[in-house]
Amino acid sequence: MKSELSAFFDRVRPAVDATLNQLLPPETASPERIHQAMRYSTLDGGKRIRPCLCVAAFAAYKDDWKPVLRVASAIEMIHSYSLIHDDLPAMDDDDLRRGKPSCHKQFDEAIAILAGDALLTLAFEVLAGSKDFPAERMLRAISTLGGAAGSRDGMIAGQVLDIEAEVTPATEKQLESIHRSKTGALIGASVWIGAYLVGAPDSDLERIRTFCDRIGLAFQVIDDILDATDGSNRDEGKATYPGIHGLEKSRDIAHHLMEDAREALSPLGHRARLLLDFCDYLETRSY
Amino acid sequence: MKSELSAFFDRVRPAVDATLNQLLPPETASPERIHQAMRYSTLDGGKRIRPCLCVAAFAAYKDDWKPVLRVASAIEMIHSYSLIHDDLPAMDDDDLRRGKPSCHKQFDEAIAILAGDALLTLAFEVLAGSKDFPAERMLRAISTLGGAAGSRDGMIAGQVLDIEAEVTPATEKQLESIHRSKTGALIGASVWIGAYLVGAPDSDLERIRTFCDRIGLAFQVIDDILDATDGSNRDEGKATYPGIHGLEKSRDIAHHLMEDAREALSPLGHRARLLLDFCDYLETRSY
Repeated sequence: MKSELSAFFDRVRPAVDATLNQLLPPETASPERIHQAMRYSTLDGGKRIRPCLCVAAFAAYKDDWKPVLRVASAIEMIHSYSLIHDDLPAMDDDDLRRGKPSCHKQFDEAIAILAGDALLTLAFEVLAGSKDFPAERMLRAISTLGGAAGSRDGMIAGQVLDIEAEVTPATEKQLESIHRSKTGALIGASVWIGAYLVGAPDSDLERIRTFCDRIGLAFQVIDDILDATDGSNRDEGKATYPGIHGLEKSRDIAHHLMEDAREALSPLGHRARLLLDFCDYLETRSY
Repeated sequence: MKSELSAFFDRVRPAVDATLNQLLPPETASPERIHQAMRYSTLDGGKRIRPCLCVAAFAAYKDDWKPVLRVASAIEMIHSYSLIHDDLPAMDDDDLRRGKPSCHKQFDEAIAILAGDALLTLAFEVLAGSKDFPAERMLRAISTLGGAAGSRDGMIAGQVLDIEAEVTPATEKQLESIHRSKTGALIGASVWIGAYLVGAPDSDLERIRTFCDRIGLAFQVIDDILDATDGSNRDEGKATYPGIHGLEKSRDIAHHLMEDAREALSPLGHRARLLLDFCDYLETRSY
């Protein structure tokens, strides 16, 4: 099973990178520094988990997944923008990102703020400019993504709650809500949009919504566990699952969420194969 | 003539404010501080020039301009986000905005960055969620707005060039390019989108494109002139038209641009009335 997902990654990741490379303005386009910064922070060998999830959901219904590449790449731009802004001195103040200087260290704070703004803007421009799907469907995908990235229960809400939790430690319930909004919403939207755009039937979309909800939360719980065990201290002062529940119980919680996710997709039969493999992958993140 | 535009403002501004009030999450919605910040910086008695231009272009073709209010308000959200981010310490470092503490002073830097991000995100979510226009048309409006706000020749490009000009003084040509992108693009897009969404014929849209180009640049030239004459020193260290051309020549340039704008619309006859009045208004900004 692992090798099929592995082969999928080997095809999809380069395709996403190539699409991003084509959609991002070249480094020589004026103003050069912001385009350099946008490319520096996006074309950085990330695992492309969100675009791969989007493509996997699409591929559950259609062998040719190329039409969803622009959408998947736009989602990755939104993820990139969020990392650039999260790393800023006024936020998490991280000097490093994936072993390289973070955007504001490599460039400067003004460029980092603007490069994040520009990636977010470009993502929506790319989505709106895509001719690969019926217009109504595309509008709903954009609006879903806006919600998942937004301030009510999306990514921005999660970042605000996360910052507030540094001052007033989060309760169990608050921590779940932070994780759901900060990471879960965009992860979930990536899957849902892939399935929605390919035209999955409503009954399947309902099940996929449950799947998205569970893996979205599980993803961040597992991230907390990995951070707690790799000795990076990246989460120092942050509200985390191991910090509140301890490592063993956190692993249990993540595993139960993943079981729920798998169960939600069981009526989809063989279609769900890749997405189920994704659950295994997300639990281990070993390739 | 002035009184007709004045009456128009009296009806449109409160309608825009009411729409923004309804579209922005309430202050009591969690996380409260970011929603307070979004509302603080958006519902602040601004002149609503961009949404009014959008509505005026729409109203040139249809008496009932209410359907364009959500779009016009989304444009104002994008304008608000840009002001919040421009005021940040890493950018223009302005403590005051319209006589009140700027967003990062009233709240803090993290909230200001995130409130800007959230307004930009919400603008696109609102646009994509609007059911008032055919879906294809809405997608093109979104994509046009993304370009006007973006890093190639839109608002973000202008802000980067503006920051760079503090280090290496801009030439005449560069200054024009800064103004066109930093302010002109969004002003122009506001008008164009209003006319496009209402279904103006292509021949009119061509003329309106020229109008947009000229008033977009003129708007910022006039802004420079007003700043140079009101003694605020807000533009200290910034590249401005009076700084490069002197006051008198700057006034000439602005006036010629406005004449070009007026001429572009002359084939539209009485339809163009409000937009022509807008030129007078923008030259004086007295009400």
